[in-house]
Order: sequence, then C-alpha cells, then structure tokens
Amino acid sequence: MTIKERKTIRKYKAVDVDKTLIHSLLATASRAATMGNMQLYSVVETRDESMKKALAPLHFNQPMVMGAPVILTFVADFNRFTRWCELSDADAGYDNFLSFTNAMTDTLLFCQNFCTLAEEAGLGTCFLGTTVYNPQGVIDTLKLPRLTFPVATITVGYPDEDPAQPDRLDIADIIREETYQAFSDEAIRKAYEYKESLPENKQFVEINGKKNLAQVFTDCRYTRRDNEAMSQGMVEALRRQGFLK
Amino acid sequence: MTIKERKTIRKYKAVDVDKTLIHSLLATASRAATMGNMQLYSVVETRDESMKKALAPLHFNQPMVMGAPVILTFVADFNRFTRWCELSDADAGYDNFLSFTNAMTDTLLFCQNFCTLAEEAGLGTCFLGTTVYNPQGVIDTLKLPRLTFPVATITVGYPDEDPAQPDRLDIADIIREETYQAFSDEAIRKAYEYKESLPENKQFVEINGKKNLAQVFTDCRYTRRDNEAMSQGMVEALRRQGFLK
Repeated sequence: MTIKERKTIRKYKAVDVDKTLIHSLLATASRAATMGNMQLYSVVETRDESMKKALAPLHFNQPMVMGAPVILTFVADFNRFTRWCELSDADAGYDNFLSFTNAMTDTLLFCQNFCTLAEEAGLGTCFLGTTVYNPQGVIDTLKLPRLTFPVATITVGYPDEDPAQPDRLDIADIIREETYQAFSDEAIRKAYEYKESLPENKQFVEINGKKNLAQVFTDCRYTRRDNEAMSQGMVEALRRQGFLK
Repeated sequence: MTIKERKTIRKYKAVDVDKTLIHSLLATASRAATMGNMQLYSVVETRDESMKKALAPLHFNQPMVMGAPVILTFVADFNRFTRWCELSDADAGYDNFLSFTNAMTDTLLFCQNFCTLAEEAGLGTCFLGTTVYNPQGVIDTLKLPRLTFPVATITVGYPDEDPAQPDRLDIADIIREETYQAFSDEAIRKAYEYKESLPENKQFVEINGKKNLAQVFTDCRYTRRDNEAMSQGMVEALRRQGFLK
C-alpha cells in the first residue's frame, strides 16, 4: 500500500507480526528528521495479552487494542538524553514545555515514518488519538518515567478488511499562498459541502437528532466539556512527568 | 530517495520547483491519519523573496531559508474547522490545550508524509526546528489567525549536495518491551558511545572547550536558559492564538 492508497485498518488477521520485522521497520523509520540528532523518542511494544487488557480501557475499549497482534505506544522521551547528560556532568535543561514540544515533534515524525513503512510491508495500522485523552493511565500502565510522555499509539497487524478511502478536503483549502488569507463564509461552506453531502454523514446527523454535521462533532464526538476536562488532565500529567518546570 | 536513505538537504539547485508538483504531493500527503477526519492543518507556501527575507531571521538566518525555492510552514489549524462550526450554529470547543495537541499531531503526520513524498520525487528537504523557537514572529509574518499555530517549517528544492547519512542510536535503545524498563548507567553510556566517538563530535567538544559531547548540547546548543525563555514565549503565543482558554 502506498501513501496515496492509505487507509486506516481496524481489523487484523489472527496472525502474529514478526518481532524482527517490527524492529527493522522502526530502525528504518528512525531516519526521520530529529532535533539536533537527539532522537527524542522511545516506543513501547505491547504483545502480552494482560498488557493489552490494561491498555484497552484507556483507549475507550476500541476493539483494535485487543484485536491487533502488536500495539506500539510512541513516547516523547527526554529521559534517556537527560540521563546521559547527568552521567556526563552536563546541566540538562530539558524539563520544560519547549523541550516537550521538541520531543513530541521528533516522536510524531518517527511514528509517521513507521506507519508508511509498515503499510509498504503489507501491514495495516490504526492511529489511536486517545493516547493523549488519558495520558496518566498510559504512563502508569507502561511505567513511563520522568521526562517521557505518550503521544501516539499505533495498532499493527495484517489487514482483515479493505474499507473505502475516506474523503479529504480539497488541497486548495489547505494551502495558503504567502500569507494565511482568511476564508470567506462562502469558501468555508464550500470546503465542507462534500463532507456534509456524504450519506454516512447525513445518517450520523439523523441518528443523533442534530441539525447538521458540525453539531455532530461539537455536541457528540468532540465536545467542549470533554476537551476542557482532558486539557486539564494532560497539563497535570505533563507537570507530573516533569515537563512544566 | 527512500526513507532508508533519507538525509537532510540544506543546499539546493537554483531551479524552481513546480507549484503543481508541490500541491499534488501535499494532496497525497493528506492521506495521513487525522483525528476524526477533521484535517486540523494548513500549510503556508512561501516563494516571494520579500517573504523569505522576513522569515529568515526567525529561523536564525539559516541559509536554507533564502536558498530554497520553496518554504512550507506547516500550521496546526483549528480556525477553519471552528469557523465551519460557527456557521453551522454549533458550539466549537476547540480553544484549549488538548485541541492544540490534536491539531499539532495531525499537522506533523501530514508534514512527514509530505517529506517522504517530496524525497521520492527527487526533492531535498530540511526540517527547521526553529519554528517553535519564535512562533509569534512566524504568526505575525504569515498573518496566522486565532486557533492556528506554526509547528514545522520545511525548506524544499532540488538537492545540490550529497552529504553522508548521520548516525542513529541502536534501535534496541529506542524500543522498550511491554513496559519502559529503566536503563542502567552502563546501558546509557553504551547507547551514546558511538556518537561520542565520531571525529566531528570530538571536534565540537574541542572547539567549544568542553569536557564531553553532552556538555556541547547542554552548554552551547540547547541550553536551559534558552529553553526556559522559549518555553515562556511559546506558551504566551499559544495563549494569544486562543489555545489556552
């Protein structure tokens, strides 16, 4: 599967994925750009059933967690680098928000490279955005130390489904030339028109008794109340992990 | 160039890169995973010389900014989606830290996909980590509105150099199985031994009059003082852009 044909795979064959393959794909993925070549990431590989059971509720029991042979949690990591500095009598000043941002960036570039390589190798992946919804639970379960933070979880396995590719916005609505020219109301409406017209989205609106698709997002899927509560949880977890000094 | 052979390219031929090519690569890159298919990103394309001149000092006058035919600033963007919600009488609760994190994640996955595709198309790229060092300057220059934030800048052009690939850590030092087993002091020392042994790194230590390579990082390249000042600047910019309600 190439980047152009990529789709999220949520159902996997009951077949193991060779550990050597995963490690080799991760090694190649680490060719991604990294801040000052510090490689500010780790990845925790979950194969044990009891560990999957512990992770599943943190990801809202999405069936991919129990159904995938391998779960990879991508962790922004300034712990390893900081320990090297400490052992070298060097004052490591990485217990701050900028350093978290740099580590998160390194981690996500590495993670996306892994996904591309996994798909080229015939594997299917699903990106679980829930990792940052309940980071403290993931931290406790995976025993993540100070100056580390989970930023992405990927379920991996051989595909047992072949869904249609979802819609995307017209790239002209993503690209701004020279400066970010504001959208007119009409341009905004037009950008999301196709998405609103899709039968499955019309169905979501009806099932949820909403006026339109935007309200399905704001009132059902990603609500202000949830976002604000989870923002607070994430900031608290960042502080406990030592990133908000 | 494949992911395995990837290297940062900082010198470009004095040849333009076709706008249609860039837009087509960005369209394909948008196949990356995205939170709820919201596509929480925009990209500002810089080709104008005067705009490059305005961006250059924000990126510490690294020569790639003036030397590349195209600069792409990848912007975490909840503005477009929020405006769609507002026009749809939907209460968009995305003015918070979790929503910024989600948008930053979407943006970096999209950005890494673009880099891979650009390299496959024979282009060279350089990831400028400086984007988050002075985000307010980038915001002002590119006129980024509320609920947007610049998270990555990529310089793009046809390669005019062919540098050696840099070192990477052994992947065994990146992967943790089931839980994050702590490194012993000896394991940490071993992980960074090869990096410390490289002639160019030994030279950095000598030139800077430091005891070892870690001190070059902590005392010269990424200092506590700079990181703390830039953390504060980033938080202030996030607040001004409406992401810390």
